[in-house]
Amino acid sequence: MSDLIRRVVIVGGTHGNELTGIYLVKKFQQFPHLLHRPSLECTTLLANPDAIAANRRYIDRDLNRCFANEDLANPALTSYEDKRAKQIAAQLGPKSQPKADVIIDLHSTTANMGLTILPSSRHPFNLRLAAYLSTLDPLVRVCCGLQCNQDAPMLRSLSPLGCTIEVGAIAQGVINADYLQQTERLVHHILDYLDAVNQGKDLPIPPSLEVYQVIASVDYPRNASGDLQAMIHPHLQFKDYEPLCDGDPMFLTFTGESILYQGENTVYPIFINEAAYYEKKIAMTLTHKQQISLETV
Amino acid sequence: MSDLIRRVVIVGGTHGNELTGIYLVKKFQQFPHLLHRPSLECTTLLANPDAIAANRRYIDRDLNRCFANEDLANPALTSYEDKRAKQIAAQLGPKSQPKADVIIDLHSTTANMGLTILPSSRHPFNLRLAAYLSTLDPLVRVCCGLQCNQDAPMLRSLSPLGCTIEVGAIAQGVINADYLQQTERLVHHILDYLDAVNQGKDLPIPPSLEVYQVIASVDYPRNASGDLQAMIHPHLQFKDYEPLCDGDPMFLTFTGESILYQGENTVYPIFINEAAYYEKKIAMTLTHKQQISLETV
Repeated sequence: MSDLIRRVVIVGGTHGNELTGIYLVKKFQQFPHLLHRPSLECTTLLANPDAIAANRRYIDRDLNRCFANEDLANPALTSYEDKRAKQIAAQLGPKSQPKADVIIDLHSTTANMGLTILPSSRHPFNLRLAAYLSTLDPLVRVCCGLQCNQDAPMLRSLSPLGCTIEVGAIAQGVINADYLQQTERLVHHILDYLDAVNQGKDLPIPPSLEVYQVIASVDYPRNASGDLQAMIHPHLQFKDYEPLCDGDPMFLTFTGESILYQGENTVYPIFINEAAYYEKKIAMTLTHKQQISLETV
Repeated sequence: MSDLIRRVVIVGGTHGNELTGIYLVKKFQQFPHLLHRPSLECTTLLANPDAIAANRRYIDRDLNRCFANEDLANPALTSYEDKRAKQIAAQLGPKSQPKADVIIDLHSTTANMGLTILPSSRHPFNLRLAAYLSTLDPLVRVCCGLQCNQDAPMLRSLSPLGCTIEVGAIAQGVINADYLQQTERLVHHILDYLDAVNQGKDLPIPPSLEVYQVIASVDYPRNASGDLQAMIHPHLQFKDYEPLCDGDPMFLTFTGESILYQGENTVYPIFINEAAYYEKKIAMTLTHKQQISLETV
């Protein structure tokens, strides 16, 4: 990677029913001057056109799980999304030598995750950018996935720099104007930051960054046939990023019994009741809260 | 129709991604004693099994628009949902001589419609039932569609008695425990009411009923290609059933201009930002509020 950030790609529609990113990218395509910054070449990409047209997350397979290097190199994988991933990797990658310096992938979630930044890696550049953004808006939170690096199968992993932005709660197939505007502001803050860095300007970075580090996912209680036996407990619904302690209710069975969280450590669940994760067997993702010093990274 | 209500059918999964009704019906199928009432034969139906399996509203066509008499009689209509509608009509209908005395069809919406009762017709029986339910829970509201009769193409139209229950706001593909429990309570109140009527018991009915009568639907502003040019205004989002007056903001364009409601009469929008209605060209449905005397119906 060069010392300067040049090529920035704003991606929407990696999931075809997450309209926030799709309509923001369409807006940027209609008004490209909005993305102009003196030191940047900023382009846009609608990642999954067939899924967007069908208003579905994907046609054959989740595109945002198709970017593992071994899958990209496997000619036997020929589903619509596998082919699309190879096209996008040819355009923006390869991971070892990305053509895009920074990738920003715009998503939404039915979980109440506000404006969540998922950095593409723990590269100090990403952490400083995330810290800068978190000073601008209290809704901004920063979360590192289990694979917070280029081994991840997400589109964002095509470059070590950049992030996914997850906004919610937003229902699939719906545009929420408030969240669309907040996401747009975040994109502009990111571009302004990148441009300032290129120009050697110092923007205020706090000395440390609060990161929610994913530790595990939890499935819904199911019977032997895989059918759901319980739902997210009403006390936990929409409580993403709030502490979950030993004995707190987690699920409610259809017959009315509460299932409690059991664990010595307080955790901070996210992606609570994300619609697209029922099929992935994820009712929520548990995180630990960490404080990362930005002076030592 | 006989003087007594005997056969009651609780329907879920008319739309395959509205999980509230689907999981309630599955619960009733697992625990049928929950539906037992001395004077009733209560059965359940999962209306669109393929759409439920696919977690999509429908496979080929919206099943809840396939029940117009002319469509049911048209052998040229052979989509999955058309065939399914004919099977269901054979099972519960025909409309002229229904085998089901009362049909309760359980739906959810991404609009903030609380617990909405959409009576199958303005039959006094339905209005009294709706009035009874509205006394039990302030979240219950009663709405009559443009075709509030058996000419409607909805599944509920197979019988003059009964209703659709619309609960929300709930994202597609998500179970919201609170709303699931509230919907279940409503089903039990309905069955208790039907059983009481059969047994000649008087349940308290208020002298009048507030009804939101649909007058028109409003599409999103679109360009010549049909692309959206605006979204629901943040001031209107989740404000179903609240008054919308001349000059109130209705839409917000992607470039930030507000589009105002213009009309002499105050209206009460519902189905605001329903995900499934983008393709039907409905941004919201406007209603008038009416007071119906139950002493004269």
